[in-house]
Amino acid sequence: MRFSRLGYEVTAVDNYFRRDACRELDAEMLYPVLSLEERARIWHEKTGKEIKVVIGDLSDPEVMRSLFQPDAIDYKWCVDESYTGLPDVIIHYAEQPSAPYSLMDYKHADITLSNNLRVTNNLLFAVRDFCRGVHIVKLGTMGEYGTPNIDIEEGWIEIEHKGRRDTFLYPRQASSIYHTSKIMDTDLMWFGVRMWGLRVTDLMQGPVYGLETEEIRIDPRFKTIFNYDEIFGTLINRFITQAVVGHPLTVYGAGGQTRGYLDIRDTLQCVLAAVENPPEPGELTIYNQIMETFSVNEIAEIVHRVGCQRGHPVSIQQLENPRCEAESHYYNPTYQGLVELGVKPHYLTDESVHSLFELVEGYRDNIREEIIFRGIKW
Amino acid sequence: MRFSRLGYEVTAVDNYFRRDACRELDAEMLYPVLSLEERARIWHEKTGKEIKVVIGDLSDPEVMRSLFQPDAIDYKWCVDESYTGLPDVIIHYAEQPSAPYSLMDYKHADITLSNNLRVTNNLLFAVRDFCRGVHIVKLGTMGEYGTPNIDIEEGWIEIEHKGRRDTFLYPRQASSIYHTSKIMDTDLMWFGVRMWGLRVTDLMQGPVYGLETEEIRIDPRFKTIFNYDEIFGTLINRFITQAVVGHPLTVYGAGGQTRGYLDIRDTLQCVLAAVENPPEPGELTIYNQIMETFSVNEIAEIVHRVGCQRGHPVSIQQLENPRCEAESHYYNPTYQGLVELGVKPHYLTDESVHSLFELVEGYRDNIREEIIFRGIKW
Repeated sequence: MRFSRLGYEVTAVDNYFRRDACRELDAEMLYPVLSLEERARIWHEKTGKEIKVVIGDLSDPEVMRSLFQPDAIDYKWCVDESYTGLPDVIIHYAEQPSAPYSLMDYKHADITLSNNLRVTNNLLFAVRDFCRGVHIVKLGTMGEYGTPNIDIEEGWIEIEHKGRRDTFLYPRQASSIYHTSKIMDTDLMWFGVRMWGLRVTDLMQGPVYGLETEEIRIDPRFKTIFNYDEIFGTLINRFITQAVVGHPLTVYGAGGQTRGYLDIRDTLQCVLAAVENPPEPGELTIYNQIMETFSVNEIAEIVHRVGCQRGHPVSIQQLENPRCEAESHYYNPTYQGLVELGVKPHYLTDESVHSLFELVEGYRDNIREEIIFRGIKW
Repeated sequence: MRFSRLGYEVTAVDNYFRRDACRELDAEMLYPVLSLEERARIWHEKTGKEIKVVIGDLSDPEVMRSLFQPDAIDYKWCVDESYTGLPDVIIHYAEQPSAPYSLMDYKHADITLSNNLRVTNNLLFAVRDFCRGVHIVKLGTMGEYGTPNIDIEEGWIEIEHKGRRDTFLYPRQASSIYHTSKIMDTDLMWFGVRMWGLRVTDLMQGPVYGLETEEIRIDPRFKTIFNYDEIFGTLINRFITQAVVGHPLTVYGAGGQTRGYLDIRDTLQCVLAAVENPPEPGELTIYNQIMETFSVNEIAEIVHRVGCQRGHPVSIQQLENPRCEAESHYYNPTYQGLVELGVKPHYLTDESVHSLFELVEGYRDNIREEIIFRGIKW
């Protein structure tokens, strides 16, 4: 919707994986979300802009490749006669995005690896075969880096060893199968960049919070999916939902786990900045897409404080950590690249937490407390 | 066969991928190789030892997991009453092993990634779920490291950065989809080691040459597969075959591409040394399984020299390199670990090249010169 508003011709491809998985796992969303076709229809009604929707599974190479046949998609609104039917930019979000999902059992690990690697590989070869000049913007994750004892750079590190030097992808060791699949994606894209001169931007994103995009103000039916369960719900969503239903905020272990976060408005700014600043052919540009860092305890304290102000006086409860992860660690990532491109950060303030509370309170009756915990361990 | 001779109870699992692929691609072997069942039958006849054979596709998680059901395999020869039906050691060779195969087109890239990652993931979860104490010996490849401008260590490197230190998997950037899939395997295994305390040895092997194992002396029908084409034939096999049919030895580009090599007798010594020296739980041990390094030009010269002595006076011909790779580069890998465990290297001598020539000359009439080149580029 953001790109469409700005005048880009947009095609969205989805296989409804997230919705299907939520149904399979009874991880109900806080509110229903319309189909992509219906959202596109309303978008057209409200803005006069068209967003083309394709429903298909991109882990099937033939489905991926069909998108690159100039006549495959009916770009009926396209007025530019030089139009080739091939894209200028591809934004690749088509991955299974949940760490707990990837560790439920061997089947969900297999689905995660198969989907994420096959979609990325299919994209790599389709771009190689049909439009090498296209700019691929791939969603990575800060989780690829893990929690090393040295500063985290933006993708690259120069290593001096026994008197010689070379520059490498920053060493990565992730703490879930999902995050490991993203390391692999980066390796695949880096291969394509070196071999075929592809142009790739990798956005190492942290957990996103918030919902208040400019597009939602056009129509509230454009809201994005909001999950609050252990599988698809991220930390801030889950804490706010717990507070609203009067459940203690559940911190895993010591709560010193520190990560980078960003507001959904900054996610949109970042993707736009990446698209508008493409790398040269044969270049892989990596940005760390976070705006500030917090420990789990710090997040719990903010949600607790704001919750108390709004009449949800829940306690903070430490649980035995169901995950294998460092609960207290060094964490010093660099994240200047996107700000240098002009992104203006929104920080996590009491005000932004109030606004999330307001949203969740509005759907208080939809919350099913029993689906929050799934007992997934690793 | 080596392990069986030494008293291990051995089960071999195969899906005949290599044979099927050779048939699909008309990459005929130098001589036919019997089925696994037939080889096991002859082995029993000659030695009195039994090797259990299972034909199945381990990229199917259910096939993998069925091997860990204690009653699934009829270990009828087993005399030890404490036997649990679960293995002590698993040697994982079940991967698509050819770089050119992985780059023929998008389908073969997809097959390579899907097979190699899914088999490894299925193994990881089966071991986690059924026998965490088992020692996994996984075949890696020296190609994971690529050709960095710093010395290549055995798997690990300590990095000092901005006054702090940490130890990481040695940075890897491979030059094919196949080799990239092996980086991913290492990442998956390292994940299992950290999360679940698995015990893994990763053998970063270089190209293997030679055929003269002790087992072949028991019966020549135990010979391993010999390919001489561009897809499955390794450099030394291909050069010797070219010399025997009077074709120039084809060097890709400048010929300075340097790699580590080892004799098949040393491969067997290395795997045995790895099995007999298991890591502790929660430990990933990595060895660089090579015995010496050569450039392509050096290999061409040895084959040329020995070929001339045997009446095959072919020239050395430089071709435009069909691959994207450094043709002249720094290369200084460490490979002391396995020698320190007692492996006694066989080096590539004129004598060992003579013996390979002798074998190939014996099958002179089987060689189909037209299948050597397949025109695969990347």
